[in-house]
Amino acid sequence: MAADRMAKVTWAGSLMEGSGRIEGVGSGAFGPLDVTWAARTETPDGRTSPEELVAAAWASCYSMALSHGLAGAGTPPERLETSVTVTFQPGEGVTKGAIEVVGTVPGIDRDTFVAQAEAAKTGCPLSKALTGIPEVTLAATLSAV
Amino acid sequence: MAADRMAKVTWAGSLMEGSGRIEGVGSGAFGPLDVTWAARTETPDGRTSPEELVAAAWASCYSMALSHGLAGAGTPPERLETSVTVTFQPGEGVTKGAIEVVGTVPGIDRDTFVAQAEAAKTGCPLSKALTGIPEVTLAATLSAV
Repeated sequence: MAADRMAKVTWAGSLMEGSGRIEGVGSGAFGPLDVTWAARTETPDGRTSPEELVAAAWASCYSMALSHGLAGAGTPPERLETSVTVTFQPGEGVTKGAIEVVGTVPGIDRDTFVAQAEAAKTGCPLSKALTGIPEVTLAATLSAV
Repeated sequence: MAADRMAKVTWAGSLMEGSGRIEGVGSGAFGPLDVTWAARTETPDGRTSPEELVAAAWASCYSMALSHGLAGAGTPPERLETSVTVTFQPGEGVTKGAIEVVGTVPGIDRDTFVAQAEAAKTGCPLSKALTGIPEVTLAATLSAV
């Protein structure tokens, strides 16, 4: 069955001087959170931004996809540490996503792990949604167990 | 100048029985947050999911884009209330994004507001990044001032 997930933002004022507030997410897991143009393009100062939220979404989706692929191949992970960095260029848009993953995966060799990590990079549902980002990179490292 | 925003997730175990934790976002604005497959596809139970995080990102990006467009047309908004619902279909992916916006915009007529809202739907940087989502809808309403 399809799952809907919702978030609501209230914005007051202009882009440069105004500010937004993520008033609620359906799950109640976090918020309210402040967002501003300056936090997005200059320094965060403790505020989030669209790109940071996408990075968190992508890192969690990627981790799920890779975990699933590894388990399907008979080598479930003990631990995956995934970081995603999303780059925003004002006037141009979201220009890059950089995925870095370090896996602790008993019984796998390096090449197989890297192949699984590449498959998750293209197969993860958020990677498929984010096809408008012109450059997506991956660095996959197998941790010594 | 380009702005990088980062988030990090640690995942332990398989997809179905394992769980992830958004350990940190670069800004420090929120977290740690738990994510699980069940929270993503069944009931949240107070946990977030990739789609909820994307909804929050998109709603904030869309609000910024519409605010900018309205100000550029000489009618800056007093207030925009934007909600985004993102639909995830297991086995298929992210199938839909639904944007709803209610604007309080002095001096604008309904048709002009709707045209600006449509322009933000396609022009917002996250809409441009999320071109892999097959269906994106918009409902724009002008609030009586």
